[in-house]
Amino acid sequence: MTAPKNIDLEISAHADQHASLRLWLRMLSCTTLIEDKIRQKLRDEFNTTLPRFDLLAQLEKNPQGLTMGELSKRMMISGGNVTAIVDQLEGEGTVVRQIGETDRRSYRVIMTPSGRQSFTRMAQVHEEWIVELFADLIEQDQSGLNDLLGKLKTSIYQNSNNAMAETE
Amino acid sequence: MTAPKNIDLEISAHADQHASLRLWLRMLSCTTLIEDKIRQKLRDEFNTTLPRFDLLAQLEKNPQGLTMGELSKRMMISGGNVTAIVDQLEGEGTVVRQIGETDRRSYRVIMTPSGRQSFTRMAQVHEEWIVELFADLIEQDQSGLNDLLGKLKTSIYQNSNNAMAETE
Repeated sequence: MTAPKNIDLEISAHADQHASLRLWLRMLSCTTLIEDKIRQKLRDEFNTTLPRFDLLAQLEKNPQGLTMGELSKRMMISGGNVTAIVDQLEGEGTVVRQIGETDRRSYRVIMTPSGRQSFTRMAQVHEEWIVELFADLIEQDQSGLNDLLGKLKTSIYQNSNNAMAETE
Repeated sequence: MTAPKNIDLEISAHADQHASLRLWLRMLSCTTLIEDKIRQKLRDEFNTTLPRFDLLAQLEKNPQGLTMGELSKRMMISGGNVTAIVDQLEGEGTVVRQIGETDRRSYRVIMTPSGRQSFTRMAQVHEEWIVELFADLIEQDQSGLNDLLGKLKTSIYQNSNNAMAETE
């Protein structure tokens, strides 16, 4: 089976475009394909969404809980969206809002024990999905890809800072 | 300068996680960083958004225009969101809704000549931004990354189809 055209961003790349742009469109296309598979599987197998999964992943790394502002920053989504996701998770008993001891107007979102249990299961299966999607790349390829993406990350920080310095 | 922690998804990767998962989080992190830079630059330099830019890119490849349904499919966003973006672009004179000749209830969205002109300029500058962000990767690295992402893309199609076949 070939890629459904409508989700293949790489077809945007004309032959006369710069190699870096074609490379970027290929990378964006791979990322979008994987995210799309993960979204679909989370819906089909756990009846949940990627933002809900991502929010739980944040709480798993922060057992002391996070404020709405911290969640909004870490997930790079608006406060309104965080509220909607937390409401859904609270409704299913996965998280609770814990009122602050010193400031009763403030609260942190923490995972419930049953939330932690179901997240652990989802995270394991999520990891298996990723392993499957990357399965045709031998260890050497995965390690090579990892190194090149490391270089790319350095390049992004380096060159976006240069560009920012120039405009300041 | 180091990465602002809140936008560095790679910190999600614990040392004990499978190499493929760490690789995926690094890839997602690079993609998010680049998209974030592009969003910021589109806003600062052209007072526009990534979805508006992406919609114009679709119309540039389809000079005969696209229906709202086609735009929704190609951009993988809801019909309501497409309507909102088309309204904004129509307001600035970049696109028009063209009523169908045979079916007056249907219409296609097409770029205006001034829309095409401003998109061409934006696309050139967008390409320069990408070239800058990838600048520290020598040609051999870019070509190697391109090949490995090609393998990954094949792997995604291969293994997501296998997984689907198993559950059918």
